[in-house]
Amino acid sequence: MKSSVWHPNTQMKEWNSFDKITKAKGMWLVDSKGHKMIDAVASMWCNVWGHSNPQLVKTITNQSKKLQHSSMFNITNEPAEQLAVNLVQISPGMHKVFYSDNGSSAMEIAIKIALQYWKNIGEKKTQIATVGNGYHGDTFGAMSVGYVPQFFGKFKKQLFQTIQFPVPNKYRLPKGYTVSDYQNECLEKIEKKFSKNNNIAAFVMESGAQMAGGVIIYPKGFQRKISQLCKKYNVLFVLDEIATGFGRLGSMIQYQEQKSTPDIVAYGKMLTGGYLTMAATLANKKVYDSFSGEFNDWKHLFHGHTYTGNPIAASVANENIKMYKKNNLIKKIQKTSKVFEEWHDEIFEIDIVGDIRHKGMLMGIELVTDRKKKTPIHPKKSINKIFYETGKKNGIYLRTLGNIVMLVPPLAISEKDLNSLLKRTIKTIKDAKSKVI
Amino acid sequence: MKSSVWHPNTQMKEWNSFDKITKAKGMWLVDSKGHKMIDAVASMWCNVWGHSNPQLVKTITNQSKKLQHSSMFNITNEPAEQLAVNLVQISPGMHKVFYSDNGSSAMEIAIKIALQYWKNIGEKKTQIATVGNGYHGDTFGAMSVGYVPQFFGKFKKQLFQTIQFPVPNKYRLPKGYTVSDYQNECLEKIEKKFSKNNNIAAFVMESGAQMAGGVIIYPKGFQRKISQLCKKYNVLFVLDEIATGFGRLGSMIQYQEQKSTPDIVAYGKMLTGGYLTMAATLANKKVYDSFSGEFNDWKHLFHGHTYTGNPIAASVANENIKMYKKNNLIKKIQKTSKVFEEWHDEIFEIDIVGDIRHKGMLMGIELVTDRKKKTPIHPKKSINKIFYETGKKNGIYLRTLGNIVMLVPPLAISEKDLNSLLKRTIKTIKDAKSKVI
Repeated sequence: MKSSVWHPNTQMKEWNSFDKITKAKGMWLVDSKGHKMIDAVASMWCNVWGHSNPQLVKTITNQSKKLQHSSMFNITNEPAEQLAVNLVQISPGMHKVFYSDNGSSAMEIAIKIALQYWKNIGEKKTQIATVGNGYHGDTFGAMSVGYVPQFFGKFKKQLFQTIQFPVPNKYRLPKGYTVSDYQNECLEKIEKKFSKNNNIAAFVMESGAQMAGGVIIYPKGFQRKISQLCKKYNVLFVLDEIATGFGRLGSMIQYQEQKSTPDIVAYGKMLTGGYLTMAATLANKKVYDSFSGEFNDWKHLFHGHTYTGNPIAASVANENIKMYKKNNLIKKIQKTSKVFEEWHDEIFEIDIVGDIRHKGMLMGIELVTDRKKKTPIHPKKSINKIFYETGKKNGIYLRTLGNIVMLVPPLAISEKDLNSLLKRTIKTIKDAKSKVI
Repeated sequence: MKSSVWHPNTQMKEWNSFDKITKAKGMWLVDSKGHKMIDAVASMWCNVWGHSNPQLVKTITNQSKKLQHSSMFNITNEPAEQLAVNLVQISPGMHKVFYSDNGSSAMEIAIKIALQYWKNIGEKKTQIATVGNGYHGDTFGAMSVGYVPQFFGKFKKQLFQTIQFPVPNKYRLPKGYTVSDYQNECLEKIEKKFSKNNNIAAFVMESGAQMAGGVIIYPKGFQRKISQLCKKYNVLFVLDEIATGFGRLGSMIQYQEQKSTPDIVAYGKMLTGGYLTMAATLANKKVYDSFSGEFNDWKHLFHGHTYTGNPIAASVANENIKMYKKNNLIKKIQKTSKVFEEWHDEIFEIDIVGDIRHKGMLMGIELVTDRKKKTPIHPKKSINKIFYETGKKNGIYLRTLGNIVMLVPPLAISEKDLNSLLKRTIKTIKDAKSKVI
């Protein structure tokens, strides 16, 4: 059978065929030829408990027999109601939940809510501020706010402009700066702009770290200080926890760990445990209340997807959240996370490894041709493809981010499996070395 | 339990509570108080076979036990592969399938593909043309192309500009025009612009009819002629069949019925039978091939959602398409559709009914205060809420579009049930009349 699929973010010419996953259990993916791979990227950073978890599967099958889908337009359903209560309960300061179907849409909703808030209260603030190198999804609003020229330059004419501030990247600091110096300078730039520009509606950033931008883990205090500046200068603070919350960086709610106070926050990826697509945008009471009025005031939010609040996805999300608590997953993650550290030195012995960045259940290994110059490796073929093929031979499923090998395993991975994964990763980098430099 | 849900497209202040649907079977939704309603809008225009269809439920449960989710990044899965083959097979001229999670995202992808196509082949075409009053979703790209000031005016500053052409609306023709005159004038405007402006990348429109824009059914030949003009002037033709394809307007592939030839087409809503969210953007070979190159040419499409090609959603979509064929659904729809016509006169006897528009399994009943002046009804409370409440009393679930009562039942509804639905609708309009004028 000739494939008719156009794969995401893929130069299709490079791939003659794609391995077909036919079943999966725990950490392991199995393809149609019986080949097994550890899911090193949690099926694009979303899988929590591993594959074929009996409780989650049972939840899907039970709900599927009862109510597959009913709308959130004029009516509601039990799992979506329960999930909203659960999400508000775990999210300090948040008041209401607006559902959608993927992270990109959840961020579009966050941006719309933030922009409309000021219209609702009769103030003129229309600009979005953000940090460079951020990523919030691939739809036009998300591309505008997470504008990386290399990815989205082709659509620049159709994107709206934002105010981009630099982000402190420990590995690539400007010459002569310490992290602390540079962080202060970044924050000063923000404050200077905030103090002069009264037109900024919202500051939008990923919470805790930039993921797709290359694992830039914020230095301590960076996010908290931006949150404070937002309060001081009356700018809404919008956080994207789609990839970073729900335990990925070691905390259930990353903005709590960062001691920051968003007005709006978005969740996705891990929400359903990694089984079905669903996302949510939460807003605090101040923001939500501004949308209240008489019908003909037209203050309500014009946004709504057909499958919003789908009961099957919502029920598996509820079970997933219940399991986080029951299994004390966040504590387990904090313990398992230390396994990454134990392998740090051995990884760094490989001379093409320029930097290793790690937080919670995330590790980014940046590959360079020259440690001093920090020159990214840049082969003719995509690095990702080389690493996928080499990883496969070593029994791991990898998807690199440019020159960064991403380790983003299912959150509940055992220490034993994580050790095995790291061992295989080291072998893969060594094996692939001759092909990438 | 206090609700924490922020409902889509809803002035929350109007609603003290929302009826909670706990189960559903066939055409019937059942709420927590045991109240039953016929699903007159197919759970926002997506349900095909009614609720709790045993074959579809079985497909979900079977696939859930095998493989819940595996990524389309570097790898693939059987249901997504099979679905792409199925979609290409039923879509004349189409070559490849790009998956996403909702219709809005599918249209964002369509727009990105269309814009990038010209960059890929080295031509400078950057504008999008469209028809006024269209609707393609609520994300920023979709809002830009389907720009209705009343809905999206608050975000105008962040939307990109398009070239909007008028659409022939039989019910509200400019004075002194016949439909045919006005249609010709609309088409001439398009041709005039096309012949002078060499910068138009794509013409984007809904296929067959504008749905959310108020059930504007295109006059015969309109879409076909635009398709021809696109070919003549080298403009990509992009169709949105999310709400109008898969039988809603009486044909599986609406662009075939319209004798038009898109370069790119999007499906959603009915794709999974109405049970799980999933959407797809298809492109022809010419467009797809332009994205082919060496990896470092960066010609590939920078777009990809986490749950793209989800195997559970894809497997239920496959079963759904199989059932269309097995049950000869399109033929059945064409027959059932006639039931709408039989009730036309009785509906039109109600004096607030200004116009009745019908095609396939869609009927829009436009309510006016004055038939001659065609003044839309405009109560203080939302018309939708009044009709929801009145419909509920008459055992139907309604969601109006402004002053238009929408009848968009599950496609496989029996003639008997449709007769019952229409009877209840007439009673509902009569009952609600005193509250809306």
